[in-house]
Amino acid sequence: MQKIKFETDYQEGAHPRILERLIQTNDEQTSGYGDDIHTRNAQELIRNAIRRPESEVFFMTGGTQTNTTVIKFLLSPVEGVIAASSGHINVHESGAIESTGHKVLSIEGRNGLIDPEDLNCYLEAFYADPTYDHMVQPGMVYVSFSSELGTIYSKDSLSRIKSICEKYNMKLFIDGARLGAGLVSEKCDITIEELAGLCDVFYIGGTKNGALFGEAVVFPDAKRFDLRNFRTLIKQQGGLLAKGRMLGIQFEVLFEDGLYFENARHSNVQAMKIKRAFTEADIPMLIDSYTNQQFPVLTHEQNKILSEKFSYELWQPLDENKSAYRFCTSWLTTDDATEELTKAIKIL
Amino acid sequence: MQKIKFETDYQEGAHPRILERLIQTNDEQTSGYGDDIHTRNAQELIRNAIRRPESEVFFMTGGTQTNTTVIKFLLSPVEGVIAASSGHINVHESGAIESTGHKVLSIEGRNGLIDPEDLNCYLEAFYADPTYDHMVQPGMVYVSFSSELGTIYSKDSLSRIKSICEKYNMKLFIDGARLGAGLVSEKCDITIEELAGLCDVFYIGGTKNGALFGEAVVFPDAKRFDLRNFRTLIKQQGGLLAKGRMLGIQFEVLFEDGLYFENARHSNVQAMKIKRAFTEADIPMLIDSYTNQQFPVLTHEQNKILSEKFSYELWQPLDENKSAYRFCTSWLTTDDATEELTKAIKIL
Amino acid sequence: MQKIKFETDYQEGAHPRILERLIQTNDEQTSGYGDDIHTRNAQELIRNAIRRPESEVFFMTGGTQTNTTVIKFLLSPVEGVIAASSGHINVHESGAIESTGHKVLSIEGRNGLIDPEDLNCYLEAFYADPTYDHMVQPGMVYVSFSSELGTIYSKDSLSRIKSICEKYNMKLFIDGARLGAGLVSEKCDITIEELAGLCDVFYIGGTKNGALFGEAVVFPDAKRFDLRNFRTLIKQQGGLLAKGRMLGIQFEVLFEDGLYFENARHSNVQAMKIKRAFTEADIPMLIDSYTNQQFPVLTHEQNKILSEKFSYELWQPLDENKSAYRFCTSWLTTDDATEELTKAIKIL
Amino acid sequence: MQKIKFETDYQEGAHPRILERLIQTNDEQTSGYGDDIHTRNAQELIRNAIRRPESEVFFMTGGTQTNTTVIKFLLSPVEGVIAASSGHINVHESGAIESTGHKVLSIEGRNGLIDPEDLNCYLEAFYADPTYDHMVQPGMVYVSFSSELGTIYSKDSLSRIKSICEKYNMKLFIDGARLGAGLVSEKCDITIEELAGLCDVFYIGGTKNGALFGEAVVFPDAKRFDLRNFRTLIKQQGGLLAKGRMLGIQFEVLFEDGLYFENARHSNVQAMKIKRAFTEADIPMLIDSYTNQQFPVLTHEQNKILSEKFSYELWQPLDENKSAYRFCTSWLTTDDATEELTKAIKIL
Repeated sequence: MQKIKFETDYQEGAHPRILERLIQTNDEQTSGYGDDIHTRNAQELIRNAIRRPESEVFFMTGGTQTNTTVIKFLLSPVEGVIAASSGHINVHESGAIESTGHKVLSIEGRNGLIDPEDLNCYLEAFYADPTYDHMVQPGMVYVSFSSELGTIYSKDSLSRIKSICEKYNMKLFIDGARLGAGLVSEKCDITIEELAGLCDVFYIGGTKNGALFGEAVVFPDAKRFDLRNFRTLIKQQGGLLAKGRMLGIQFEVLFEDGLYFENARHSNVQAMKIKRAFTEADIPMLIDSYTNQQFPVLTHEQNKILSEKFSYELWQPLDENKSAYRFCTSWLTTDDATEELTKAIKIL
Repeated sequence: MQKIKFETDYQEGAHPRILERLIQTNDEQTSGYGDDIHTRNAQELIRNAIRRPESEVFFMTGGTQTNTTVIKFLLSPVEGVIAASSGHINVHESGAIESTGHKVLSIEGRNGLIDPEDLNCYLEAFYADPTYDHMVQPGMVYVSFSSELGTIYSKDSLSRIKSICEKYNMKLFIDGARLGAGLVSEKCDITIEELAGLCDVFYIGGTKNGALFGEAVVFPDAKRFDLRNFRTLIKQQGGLLAKGRMLGIQFEVLFEDGLYFENARHSNVQAMKIKRAFTEADIPMLIDSYTNQQFPVLTHEQNKILSEKFSYELWQPLDENKSAYRFCTSWLTTDDATEELTKAIKIL
Repeated sequence: MQKIKFETDYQEGAHPRILERLIQTNDEQTSGYGDDIHTRNAQELIRNAIRRPESEVFFMTGGTQTNTTVIKFLLSPVEGVIAASSGHINVHESGAIESTGHKVLSIEGRNGLIDPEDLNCYLEAFYADPTYDHMVQPGMVYVSFSSELGTIYSKDSLSRIKSICEKYNMKLFIDGARLGAGLVSEKCDITIEELAGLCDVFYIGGTKNGALFGEAVVFPDAKRFDLRNFRTLIKQQGGLLAKGRMLGIQFEVLFEDGLYFENARHSNVQAMKIKRAFTEADIPMLIDSYTNQQFPVLTHEQNKILSEKFSYELWQPLDENKSAYRFCTSWLTTDDATEELTKAIKIL
Repeated sequence: MQKIKFETDYQEGAHPRILERLIQTNDEQTSGYGDDIHTRNAQELIRNAIRRPESEVFFMTGGTQTNTTVIKFLLSPVEGVIAASSGHINVHESGAIESTGHKVLSIEGRNGLIDPEDLNCYLEAFYADPTYDHMVQPGMVYVSFSSELGTIYSKDSLSRIKSICEKYNMKLFIDGARLGAGLVSEKCDITIEELAGLCDVFYIGGTKNGALFGEAVVFPDAKRFDLRNFRTLIKQQGGLLAKGRMLGIQFEVLFEDGLYFENARHSNVQAMKIKRAFTEADIPMLIDSYTNQQFPVLTHEQNKILSEKFSYELWQPLDENKSAYRFCTSWLTTDDATEELTKAIKIL
């Protein structure tokens, strides 16, 4: 019997409406590389969603590619990017940022988030050091929303980070691989319009929220940057899809009537059921997450029982008897699957 | 009225059988990043197609990405890659190869191909120069099959290039973005097995031959390289698809019963009809191509007439009165479209 | 009145014997880029000093350049280099290592040294993580001898680090910017021959020990690497001096009759006098260093008094009342200068 | 008997006045990395020499390093640098420019110079190509003054190149490794002030004109660039000399009373004598050079005779019977050496 998978939010295909649209449009003839009506339409839909007609939107195929391209675009050769130590670019991108010549300057995160006060201290200490011009210059702050640990920034916290960035002449980039799950979280106090106003650039992750693949990079205030060559840089980084409309079509479907947020909501609802089940079973959570990733701390015994029927990720060994694990839900996690899991948790 | 497009071979979606399979498999739960049954199956099908069980196959999303990753993997920091001046990596990849630190050493091509004799002369002159250790060292030869100009290497020519590579301790890499069209060309005297035996690495292009996207990198004699980190490098280059099975599924469909070659054959058949029409109309061809790209030399008058109903690419201005244009066919070019075009050519 | 400087070990020119030799040899005509008799002679002297005729020696102009070139030469694109968090490459080289595409993987050091046990834990945890192939692969360990904090590795400690490197298939590189001060320290239990046998590559720092500039990179077991292109890489990195003999001449003087070690000994003797003075004055030392860098912890008051007559570096603020400072001696620190300082310390 | 060398202009040490000054200043204590009185003084002398108090001057140790740092500083990631095919950065720097991610876009030079008309054609064709945004963007023009073939730009030619750069929004960078020989050439119609006014950045080569090593990078109109991080970039590129005053001292000597130009003049005078000797002996010159590099075309017989007593470089094989050779003079080429050579030429 195959196990029910809660491993990741990219373990299935795409939302059926996306597949349908791909079939409907399959025989259309369009120019390549995103010069097509679907791409233009999707860009417009996203500009509307953030209520910023002056913004610019680009589509890329994956998160690592997106992070690398954006960061390479905005940093000068001696600048690095500040990230939480748990940040995706600092851990799980095989050194993609460094491969473009830029150091990731890591700050110990708090549950996956950069604390504004920590950031401030870091920068004060940096510029107080008389040898600072022999060091990598901090040119950008990178935050993930929601974070790799399922947590999210409050509007206040993000605003304070933005102010610090302005003070120190740094860009602020929000990795939105799981933007949907963050924005629809019951603990979220910020809208997508507000988020767009609090950063220099962010991306809207499609891969982990119902698309076959695809991320939409948004420069909310496009005139601040010379974006004429951004597409050329995407090409250089190997991210310019020949059949670019594939990305346009997917984001059209996701944004024309709110499917993007609907998917994320579904995903979070399942996650919250799972969280509740763990909590009711007196199983502690490593992190108090309100998005689609949940991190229960299980004894080896508990893990042995659950893993017979379900698959999920080992997150972090804690001591000899227990470890934290990650359970991840998606837009396609069925009520049945969740129910099976919560029942199993109850009788642990 | 929309024009009939002969602009590129990636202007439509995917072969219907690919879309069907995507739908059938959509709800399956698989691990990410290519660790799934479809990917493994596709790898096996390709190993069988080249009759080399010892080979290793990796999937990536696009050509530029593939070229960059392969070249970066195989070159040491002081080595460059020799390419025909018209080679894709030398012209149309926005400096992707250089962005990884490697110079493209261009040799004037002959109709898009590197002549073995030219290559030999280049290398003899290089090593005869007493200052050669102040120069970029030639570490690889890059050839395109079929080439950017629709031409293909003969078995003899490719064998001679391979011998030169061995003599000078260089790798040979075949860019197969249009491998199908090359291999099924009526002028081709080499099989895919033979081609695999004449290089260190090549790739099988899916994007331009019926896939939504996707290229299969093949190391025919895998034990010659330490490939354990190749996947990590794909990740670093932003080419590791989260829903990796998408690539596996597509190549399964393309290789399980010969669809890959069928698509290419269809494409070439349409191209040959167009070529014949131009020739019968006494319109000269810039290059004598037997694959899916055709380059007629049109007067401005002729171009004006044809471009009313058809779209295609300006390739190269030749003199005040005429230019070369590119007409490109694909697996989805319909008999009707081709007939419309050939009729129009006839009455030019 | 100009202050007496204890800021760095590169605040003066070169040892007089080096200048004399430059004058004597000035009109000689030699080929460029290190193809000259002085360079060959200096290489031979160093090979003799480490008793390894099979070694290869290259000269470069500075430490950052040397670190970058060696690390770039030995790592594959997905590999990074492990360093103590205080390591020069991790802090004070403006991201030079990252600029070549490689991440510095920092481990919290212990007084500037990597503890073998910490290294082992790091690697065990790394390979225990199932996602390790999405991370930067550890390909090398970088240690400084003596370290940035004046400390040195014991033979046992270095041997254990070497064993770990072998187990995990990593290179070991010793940054010897202050090699002399380390080797002649009264606490050092390792000879230069032994050190050469415990690493894959190291360098002998000239800049901080009596040369105008210059570092000698040594591959003790040269046949393990394909070094034919190393000089080409030095050229690419901007480190191949046109008048290469300048480096050869300096290292000839330093190694023909032990001047290198004599300089270091002089430097350490002065440092030990200073250390004793601080200790006798009950001023604590941040680190128990036995080389030419000393780090007393001074109150603001004490600092105010000393800094009237002497200049030295603020190393690290500790609390509201005191900070650690660095006093650095060199081959040219005079007995008089040291005496002035020790007298001043006594009456603090 | 040792041959008299006309191989290069960096085959001897430094001008005696430089060595004297190094001795005089040897025991001075200064801060490192160019933060010293000699460096500041040398910067001021150069600003005066070009009559531009608003300019900024930086010192580096070698030409390749300087070219790489300047080009990396001024280009964005998708931009490349246009150079004559014979340009140093295109041939003899081991791919240093590409190692920082930038393509060298080569234009066939005319005797080592970029013809303004050729440059214009190149750019017009580039922007006329509808696929230009898939290509490397031209962001800078690099010219050498004097060129690698001993030739120099006229004021008119340089002005036209500058205009084209402005039109196409490109920087203009002048490699002055042999600036002295160019500026004092009898055919030169431009002063150093004028040259400074016709570019964005240039460098004054010391290595080939009497220094032990060293190049002075000059940004004539410093306020156009944000140069705060330029020193950090020099550090990153391994070009920031610890004992930075070494560079300052050398350029002080070279520029305090015209020694720089005196050296170059001496060098050119010797070269002109050699040129005359060849011409009077009816030996053709490959290039009509009026600087310190001369390129006679010798038969094998002639070469055999001359090479018994003199050493010089094979430049380029021409046909079965003859080749071009390079004879290079320097600030230290003695009248005697030149006379020996001219006598030998006479009796060829």
